[in-house]
Amino acid sequence: MGQQNVIDLNSDVGESFGLYRLGLDEEVIPLITSANIACGFHAGDPSVMRRTVALAKQHGVAVGAHPGLPDLIGFGRRVMDTTPEEIQDDVTYQVGALQAFVTAQGMTLQHVKPHGALYNMAVAHPEMWEVIAGALAAVDQHLILVALAGPNRKTIEAIPARTGIRVAFEFFGDRAYNPDGSLVSRREPGAVIHDHTQVAERVVKMVKEGTVTARDQSEVVLEADTICVHGDNPEAVTLVRKIGEVLTREGIRMAPTGTFL
Amino acid sequence: MGQQNVIDLNSDVGESFGLYRLGLDEEVIPLITSANIACGFHAGDPSVMRRTVALAKQHGVAVGAHPGLPDLIGFGRRVMDTTPEEIQDDVTYQVGALQAFVTAQGMTLQHVKPHGALYNMAVAHPEMWEVIAGALAAVDQHLILVALAGPNRKTIEAIPARTGIRVAFEFFGDRAYNPDGSLVSRREPGAVIHDHTQVAERVVKMVKEGTVTARDQSEVVLEADTICVHGDNPEAVTLVRKIGEVLTREGIRMAPTGTFL
Amino acid sequence: MGQQNVIDLNSDVGESFGLYRLGLDEEVIPLITSANIACGFHAGDPSVMRRTVALAKQHGVAVGAHPGLPDLIGFGRRVMDTTPEEIQDDVTYQVGALQAFVTAQGMTLQHVKPHGALYNMAVAHPEMWEVIAGALAAVDQHLILVALAGPNRKTIEAIPARTGIRVAFEFFGDRAYNPDGSLVSRREPGAVIHDHTQVAERVVKMVKEGTVTARDQSEVVLEADTICVHGDNPEAVTLVRKIGEVLTREGIRMAPTGTFL
Amino acid sequence: MGQQNVIDLNSDVGESFGLYRLGLDEEVIPLITSANIACGFHAGDPSVMRRTVALAKQHGVAVGAHPGLPDLIGFGRRVMDTTPEEIQDDVTYQVGALQAFVTAQGMTLQHVKPHGALYNMAVAHPEMWEVIAGALAAVDQHLILVALAGPNRKTIEAIPARTGIRVAFEFFGDRAYNPDGSLVSRREPGAVIHDHTQVAERVVKMVKEGTVTARDQSEVVLEADTICVHGDNPEAVTLVRKIGEVLTREGIRMAPTGTFL
Repeated sequence: MGQQNVIDLNSDVGESFGLYRLGLDEEVIPLITSANIACGFHAGDPSVMRRTVALAKQHGVAVGAHPGLPDLIGFGRRVMDTTPEEIQDDVTYQVGALQAFVTAQGMTLQHVKPHGALYNMAVAHPEMWEVIAGALAAVDQHLILVALAGPNRKTIEAIPARTGIRVAFEFFGDRAYNPDGSLVSRREPGAVIHDHTQVAERVVKMVKEGTVTARDQSEVVLEADTICVHGDNPEAVTLVRKIGEVLTREGIRMAPTGTFL
Repeated sequence: MGQQNVIDLNSDVGESFGLYRLGLDEEVIPLITSANIACGFHAGDPSVMRRTVALAKQHGVAVGAHPGLPDLIGFGRRVMDTTPEEIQDDVTYQVGALQAFVTAQGMTLQHVKPHGALYNMAVAHPEMWEVIAGALAAVDQHLILVALAGPNRKTIEAIPARTGIRVAFEFFGDRAYNPDGSLVSRREPGAVIHDHTQVAERVVKMVKEGTVTARDQSEVVLEADTICVHGDNPEAVTLVRKIGEVLTREGIRMAPTGTFL
Repeated sequence: MGQQNVIDLNSDVGESFGLYRLGLDEEVIPLITSANIACGFHAGDPSVMRRTVALAKQHGVAVGAHPGLPDLIGFGRRVMDTTPEEIQDDVTYQVGALQAFVTAQGMTLQHVKPHGALYNMAVAHPEMWEVIAGALAAVDQHLILVALAGPNRKTIEAIPARTGIRVAFEFFGDRAYNPDGSLVSRREPGAVIHDHTQVAERVVKMVKEGTVTARDQSEVVLEADTICVHGDNPEAVTLVRKIGEVLTREGIRMAPTGTFL
Repeated sequence: MGQQNVIDLNSDVGESFGLYRLGLDEEVIPLITSANIACGFHAGDPSVMRRTVALAKQHGVAVGAHPGLPDLIGFGRRVMDTTPEEIQDDVTYQVGALQAFVTAQGMTLQHVKPHGALYNMAVAHPEMWEVIAGALAAVDQHLILVALAGPNRKTIEAIPARTGIRVAFEFFGDRAYNPDGSLVSRREPGAVIHDHTQVAERVVKMVKEGTVTARDQSEVVLEADTICVHGDNPEAVTLVRKIGEVLTREGIRMAPTGTFL
């Protein structure tokens, strides 16, 4: 967490499906330290999962599950009125499915990061982070849950004591923040920061000082263990490369959360 | 195998899906020793899987995965032109998904029995048993593969040495056999034996003598470790109960394959 | 509408899927005048749709589409955060699919009734009724939209003038009503009325007087064209039979909405 | 058919799904005369279908349904052991779904071309062409079935008299042919012709002379009404453009089959 000299870079990968290709996995995976692999509900399929685990292994990248809502057509981005039990069952299923591919390749599953609407539902209803952690604890006590750094930190920080599951807090370098540490909604103008230099600076600042400059220019305490980066398009990959270069130049080490949490 | 005094009774369970109910799991599970649980591709869903594992645990029944082809509408009964790699990936995925629920309830996955068309495809192309065993070996060396006892025994018996995966041979007490030890096709008259007494006698004979009387009245050597029984309807459950009673009366112990293979 | 001597009885049918059977279609279809047939998103499949249309035809029952959200595992009962455009596209798709089976059997599609969460989403956001009607108008100007009779009547009554689509208002004889004409939520006690005599009396009263007695014993004006009945279980079918008998005894004719709207 | 001065150019389009993009529809649709639109089973979704119909309408291109097997993960390319009844039901469903979008945009569905494994299954078992035609006849007598020109011509030519459905024979300009008029299997070397000039010449020759030069250099009579072209990648689109130019130069008119069959 903040004021540290190590940080994890995570990216959503393995989002292809059947004949459909999505994301520049071959390009972004060598640049990150943790890969969030889709598990077949909102994206990904068994063969894509196997190949993505192999790609992560080849580049020494830690592997995590990226479970989503059962909504392939909506890419898991549509909030659904699910029960906590359904969420636990859906997460258990997807984590287990990926774990089999990870085990088959002699690796260990490091973390779980909910995808899309599932992540947003937990941000909106922070008790859901514990619901998800509860599912993870039953499957594998060594798993790390990736959760949004921000206003619900207190609730989320109680999870390890309550479930035995470690939490990695996540920072979005390319997103504007509100003064309370929450993300500015994507529906508002300026929610996404496109300037690569500015994004890299925000990442460095968060790592070194544990703060982020909010939309109203106030300084907000925001300590995180992992930075979310993207590999959807060539420009996104360029940004990841730049973030890596700037972090290295600043003497900040990049490593999977499992090595330092 | 044959001439023994112990046998496993396995049944396909956990085949409900969402609101849809299929099979008398509550009635048949207490009567069997190994449960083949559907994994969501041809039947079953995450919540059904969790509940079915719990039911098996409650009755001290060993749990296995029952992976199928990705064909919910056809209940995994339609042969598909899949590659060996697709089959391995689909099996890995489903086995892992179920394993998570099994682990979460403090149990261990005992076996894997392919479902429907996947099973039939392996019977028709026996090299597929090894393809499947290869997937299992990578996920968990302690898994047992359930395969049809019959003409391909030699090919299948080589699997443990080649993959490290044990094989349990399966016998169908309610199916007619050809003189070569293969099953009479369901399309032919007399393929299914409906008389409960006759079915129970065939089971006892197979266990005690390692033989089955073929359709032409010849005696065929057929040694198996597990008997496939059904729980689809009340009469099927009655037959399972009768088989259990007759086995007990004959001094044959019923136990999961994992305890004696 | 109310103070009339004709009423439609509609029921959700064709909800089986693959090997899975749901609903006593063979028993309830002969008792109703309009069949709402599932279209494959939340229930139903192409073969079930064909067979259900045939069953309706055999009994002279009018056929409608019962489109749902794309959520088979949740039976279309989980609210999803969809856009109006997605709803229109999903409705268009499902209505067209059913229309093909209806045309193939020489019938005409009479109506469309949204299913489960889709219906509830429209009740909660009445502008969605017009969204759905817009989709219908583009496909077939003769379709009738089934919508909940109640507090949003004014909004819904504007639909024919705005889209050209007729509306059939629906009454739930077995549900308690609030004084404003809305349904008492299923989460509250007493939401569902189980007494068959009472249900039948409420139906007759609504048809003859155009009113329903609300939970607080106030009389609420509530005029409807169609009564929702169920065929999920033998008792539900018994209730439908009773409603039919009481209506007949009271001199109220039962007929599809398409014949009198 | 052959020795004519008009030909149709058809291409498979609308194969995107949710967030997944496939095919250069915007580029290829302006170059063709008939669009085969995926219907949601192997590719496509309701919103993609609507947008693809709109794109075809904008460019004055005739619209057809491109139904496939229910195998999204395998893109409908894996042969499945389906019954004729299942095929009819699946085709009816998909044709109806697309028809709704076509009707909604004031167009008329022109044709139906089975996709992938469904097409190949019909090529291998030509009686399946009539099974499919039977489904079309029940839905809309004006539909045209697109079938492979080649050795089964006699069987297929009987379809109009038997079902009332017209047939458009299809030619693959970029595929090698056997002396019996069948396609050289893709598994054999030289099955696909990559030289654009050669492909265009074969198309012209087929249209003007009603023949194709087989792999053994023999001249085979092969008359077709429509040429299959592709829009998967920029080079494919370049080939379509070239074919169009050469046809124009040769005084051959391009038009939808519905205008000249």
